[in-house]
Amino acid sequence: MEQRVHFITVATRDLDAVRRFYVDGLGWTATMDVPDEILFFQVGPGVMLGLFDAEAFAADLGAGTPVLPAPVGCTLSHNVESPAEVDRVLEQAATAGATIVKPGQHAAFGGYHGHFADPNELLWEVAYNPGWQVAEDGRVTLGPADE
Amino acid sequence: MEQRVHFITVATRDLDAVRRFYVDGLGWTATMDVPDEILFFQVGPGVMLGLFDAEAFAADLGAGTPVLPAPVGCTLSHNVESPAEVDRVLEQAATAGATIVKPGQHAAFGGYHGHFADPNELLWEVAYNPGWQVAEDGRVTLGPADE
Repeated sequence: MEQRVHFITVATRDLDAVRRFYVDGLGWTATMDVPDEILFFQVGPGVMLGLFDAEAFAADLGAGTPVLPAPVGCTLSHNVESPAEVDRVLEQAATAGATIVKPGQHAAFGGYHGHFADPNELLWEVAYNPGWQVAEDGRVTLGPADE
Repeated sequence: MEQRVHFITVATRDLDAVRRFYVDGLGWTATMDVPDEILFFQVGPGVMLGLFDAEAFAADLGAGTPVLPAPVGCTLSHNVESPAEVDRVLEQAATAGATIVKPGQHAAFGGYHGHFADPNELLWEVAYNPGWQVAEDGRVTLGPADE
């Protein structure tokens, strides 16, 4: 099994709220929108985020899987270039309808970050990480965890 | 906010089990391994998977965040080239210590897939998706949801 994620799929209560937040609010473009079922957004080279109706998510996993309204124990991170941009993106997300979970602040890894929850309680971290570097070929190097 | 995920971070009960499963079992290479805290694996161009100690995950989100032993409502998908390779990867994962949640079978999207849970209950889908295409620049196109 290669070291590769192609889809991140999350249980989602309200797909209309997805459209309002990501498409209308943040200006994102869906690669595919199947009403009442799933929206896909491309979130990296060869990487898709699927916001999947919570009941359909559970049904896809099989009988006996509980229907959960939102993912827990999982965070998606979006890196930006400066602490000021962290604050700016958190403000943009809040304006679009997100709930700020952790305001912008010093992060344990040596940078600056904050968290918001989308209207379906999917958690996002917005981070300025001075140790984050991506080479031409997409290979990531990480600086020390603490500095 | 750009349409981009840089880190997928999941609450993880047992980091030793992570090493045994992903490193020893699947042969993956960690970009960074901070004992008792987090392991990072690169899982795409500019995309990292962080397996973060569940207590540290909760602490990072702030006081009052419950410590959950594993993510729920979230699946990571790994695409392969054929139904036979789905079965082969599921078998490899099981041999490495995963639990098969859904054996390889026809998938609603028109391909073939199955699911396993890693030793910390992180869910993976292994999929053959005939509608999945990635261009040179990393742009994904998806075929019809059903065919």
